[in-house]
Amino acid sequence: MIESVVFNDDGLVPVIAQDSESGQILMFAWMNREALEETSKTGRAVYFSRSRQRLWRKGEESGHVQHVKSLRLDCDGDVLLMNVEQIGGIACHTGREHCFYRQLGDDGQWHITEKVIKDASEIYNRTPD
Amino acid sequence: MIESVVFNDDGLVPVIAQDSESGQILMFAWMNREALEETSKTGRAVYFSRSRQRLWRKGEESGHVQHVKSLRLDCDGDVLLMNVEQIGGIACHTGREHCFYRQLGDDGQWHITEKVIKDASEIYNRTPD
Repeated sequence: MIESVVFNDDGLVPVIAQDSESGQILMFAWMNREALEETSKTGRAVYFSRSRQRLWRKGEESGHVQHVKSLRLDCDGDVLLMNVEQIGGIACHTGREHCFYRQLGDDGQWHITEKVIKDASEIYNRTPD
Repeated sequence: MIESVVFNDDGLVPVIAQDSESGQILMFAWMNREALEETSKTGRAVYFSRSRQRLWRKGEESGHVQHVKSLRLDCDGDVLLMNVEQIGGIACHTGREHCFYRQLGDDGQWHITEKVIKDASEIYNRTPD
């Protein structure tokens, strides 16, 4: 199945993580071949962190693990859509349910529409990136 | 609002298009600054085609225009989530409702789960890319 996936010049493929119950888009991240292999083998979301240049087992620090319910590939084979069960109900490192918490208003400005469920300092023993 | 958006080294930002009614992820594409400006000004989805290296007014050939219902920005400011009304009920150039029509099965193979609503030859007067 990996052979059907088209990785970019950096060896990465974009991944959209969607909540399997609500349909809410939780986050967007990247996988390399190793991350995809481990994800499909273990059923737990593993990404590739571009900032840290290493595998990122989602929830490894926060406990906010994602259990994979289904994995889909797009028409060009270069984007993945993953339906997940989000443990803890928090996908974003800011402590919100999801990362897309800013919405464009009629005034042409971004407005924060989602509340912080848990403060980042409580989630991590460090300041989030 | 454009100032809050982080474009990559190619001047592009990834965009997830979600059906505003069903919550279905329709497609994934890219915008440059000009595409984003036109999209937010006109309320009609305009992408940047990497293969053609030009603005791509979604539906310009197929008629499958997308009307933008909301636009969201993620925590890092480098991904957009766009809720749209999909005219014609077809977002994919293969003539399917959406692009993520292959699902990974228990057998480790990709399986096509979505039917072709309209044959691509009927949508375009050419073979799709």
